[in-house]
Amino acid sequence: MTTTVTTRADALTAAMDHAVTLAERGGSAGGNPRVGCVIVDAAGSARATGFHRGAGSPHAEIAALRSLPRLSPAELAETTMVVTLEPCRHHGRTPPCTEAIRAAGIARVVYAVADPNEAAAGGADALRSAGVEVLTADQAGVSPAARARAEELTHAWRTAVRRARPWLAAKTASSLDGRVAAPDGTSRWITGPEARAHAHTVRAGVDAVVVGTGTVLADDPALTARTGQGPRPSQPLRVVIGERDVPPGAQLRRQPGPWRHLRTRDISAALDVLYADGARRVLLDGGPTLIAAALRSGLVDELHTYLAPALIGAGRSAVTDLGVTTLAEAPRFRTVSTTRLGEDILVIARPTTPTSEGAS
Amino acid sequence: MTTTVTTRADALTAAMDHAVTLAERGGSAGGNPRVGCVIVDAAGSARATGFHRGAGSPHAEIAALRSLPRLSPAELAETTMVVTLEPCRHHGRTPPCTEAIRAAGIARVVYAVADPNEAAAGGADALRSAGVEVLTADQAGVSPAARARAEELTHAWRTAVRRARPWLAAKTASSLDGRVAAPDGTSRWITGPEARAHAHTVRAGVDAVVVGTGTVLADDPALTARTGQGPRPSQPLRVVIGERDVPPGAQLRRQPGPWRHLRTRDISAALDVLYADGARRVLLDGGPTLIAAALRSGLVDELHTYLAPALIGAGRSAVTDLGVTTLAEAPRFRTVSTTRLGEDILVIARPTTPTSEGAS
Ligand SMILES: NC(=O)c1ccc[n+]([C@@H]2O[C@H](COP(=O)([O-])OP(=O)(O)OC[C@H]3O[C@@H](n4cnc5c(N)ncnc54)[C@H](OP(=O)(O)O)[C@@H]3O)[C@@H](O)[C@H]2O)c1
Ligand SMILES: NC(=O)c1ccc[n+]([C@@H]2O[C@H](COP(=O)([O-])OP(=O)(O)OC[C@H]3O[C@@H](n4cnc5c(N)ncnc54)[C@H](OP(=O)(O)O)[C@@H]3O)[C@@H](O)[C@H]2O)c1
Repeated sequence: MTTTVTTRADALTAAMDHAVTLAERGGSAGGNPRVGCVIVDAAGSARATGFHRGAGSPHAEIAALRSLPRLSPAELAETTMVVTLEPCRHHGRTPPCTEAIRAAGIARVVYAVADPNEAAAGGADALRSAGVEVLTADQAGVSPAARARAEELTHAWRTAVRRARPWLAAKTASSLDGRVAAPDGTSRWITGPEARAHAHTVRAGVDAVVVGTGTVLADDPALTARTGQGPRPSQPLRVVIGERDVPPGAQLRRQPGPWRHLRTRDISAALDVLYADGARRVLLDGGPTLIAAALRSGLVDELHTYLAPALIGAGRSAVTDLGVTTLAEAPRFRTVSTTRLGEDILVIARPTTPTSEGAS
Repeated sequence: MTTTVTTRADALTAAMDHAVTLAERGGSAGGNPRVGCVIVDAAGSARATGFHRGAGSPHAEIAALRSLPRLSPAELAETTMVVTLEPCRHHGRTPPCTEAIRAAGIARVVYAVADPNEAAAGGADALRSAGVEVLTADQAGVSPAARARAEELTHAWRTAVRRARPWLAAKTASSLDGRVAAPDGTSRWITGPEARAHAHTVRAGVDAVVVGTGTVLADDPALTARTGQGPRPSQPLRVVIGERDVPPGAQLRRQPGPWRHLRTRDISAALDVLYADGARRVLLDGGPTLIAAALRSGLVDELHTYLAPALIGAGRSAVTDLGVTTLAEAPRFRTVSTTRLGEDILVIARPTTPTSEGAS
């Protein structure tokens, strides 16, 4: 395919990287993808930038167009919009981006990832019909590393939308020998302050935090996302799954913010309810029984394993029985990253075999 | 203290780093410390280098002196020997280094770490009496990072010599939830080829590898240090601790190389035997019962925890009961390093409280 893009591939790569960095500031609460946008001139200089701040606020493209200075037709003809996700063409809570891009007279659009949302997809075609040149990041020569960053940005969200079931991360915090509590039940604190602060950052970045009734009855957690100074600006929906009651005086009820009790042991059904409610990224924050059940059902998309350099030798393990009898049956993961958090280590891993593909 | 060293501190730092890198090539088998030596001129250029290749071969200083070109008295007056460990002054399997340094006419010596070995110590004083200028790396302005590298090089060996008991590393290889085997006993292979190759490199770098009779009876290990191609040049002494017999056909007996059976459950006494035998660095290669016993006795100086990104949910844990009932009693470690090995992760950690200090 021949292209008339004048901006060089390295400048477009830099713009895509810039767009990803902007998008990362957006958080994810509200069930929307993180999207960043940079509008560059022929020399590759950013003339405007924008990112999406969550449901109800403008899309990244609109935010960038609003900050674009008035350009001459000659300048517009040399302008490229670089965006991490294919612009939408649907009327959601905001008007379609494709329409705004056309109206602004942008000459060409480079995007990293196609929109998997059936209602929103087709933006690239719509723009082409309106005479805008549209290239994928690959076609525009954006580096594989920058494209991978842009893909990772919406990986969880796209997985959720494609399957119509929330993307699910399961978190455990244990000693190096996999214990989440000592024999007498003491479990505070196995990991240190840096690891706990990180876990609260993750909570603030998901749409819902889920625990089983066992954890509510044992630990009485607030499940809010906090810093040392107090609650964070972005709070997930707090969810309990299980048939037993949540006690009247539970922290869950007493702390401000929405929470739900799903009186079921069918985790898949519970995730369907959360999806219908708008949740795309969900954190399973324990305990061992609920996480084991989710693993057995093939519902876990990512493990967040916080490991403290301690040994306990007995007490509850990070997951209860998985029905594994021989090693070959053990669920295997690929390591995505390992991060030092003070003395602790966070291992993020994803299943080597895809998780079950929702309603089929 | 005033110093007449003409070589600049940054050149001495570079020489110390170089000496450490040389020393790392030496391995540690044979119970001797790893030592590296670089002889520099006034401009900081290396005129000769040497490192210790293990018991019976020349010390690093001697190896360097042998490769030193003939120098004029004026050149010798500007020459500095940079060595990672204080030169010895005792007649061991080789003559004293202090004597050779003096005889060679070296004007000054910079060393990083004092020799903790009573018989060998006092080298700095002996050199000073012989008219050689002697500075610690600190006094010579060698950077803290280079000094720390030099200290780490002999950390295990010095700990052992100071306490007259081998330095002990305990190795486990488990899933992320701390299981070393599935319920049916299958344990091969939890970790991948990179982690297993690393473990064999560690074996080749210690003086003895120890397991309990339980591991011998369950796994029949050879305990040799191997590559994919065959045995490595440097092999540790292979040791079994426990009262039961080692079966006549055991791999331990069939594979070439020395091995010992210490018919005891007193790990401290077993370590004394190994120390008397020349072992300074010992690897406890399992299993869960022996490692737990060593931890309970406060004998473990370092954990080598290989973690595979898998979950098993049941089966043997990496360590058996440690006598811990409440979290505050759990042995805590500080994380020294985390290393990705293929899909696996190696966590090296050391006790936050010093291990028990030998015969007292
Ligand atoms: N270190 C950590 O990472 C961490 C995190 C959280 C909790 N914990 C510890 O874990 C302990 C609580 O353990 P837990 O395992 O009882 O807690 P849990 O997993 O939170 O709760 C288990 C309960 O979840 C409900 N449930 C919902 N769906 C289920 C399903 N599909 N299968 C089975 N149960 C389902 C059941 O309650 P119903 O009977 O009501 O239906 C079940 O008893 C506490 O000691 C806590 O400190 C540790
Ligand atoms: N993944 C790994 O990292 C790894 C490594 C090694 C082994 N393993 C697995 O561990 C299993 C074997 O477990 P294990 O715990 O029986 O093996 P073990 O710890 O190697 O052996 C235990 C035996 O060591 C002897 N012993 C010596 N000193 C002792 C002391 N102070 N306290 C208690 N026992 C002492 C006792 O034997 P006596 O009765 O003869 O005195 C005891 O029964 C195998 O399935 C093997 O696959 C896993």
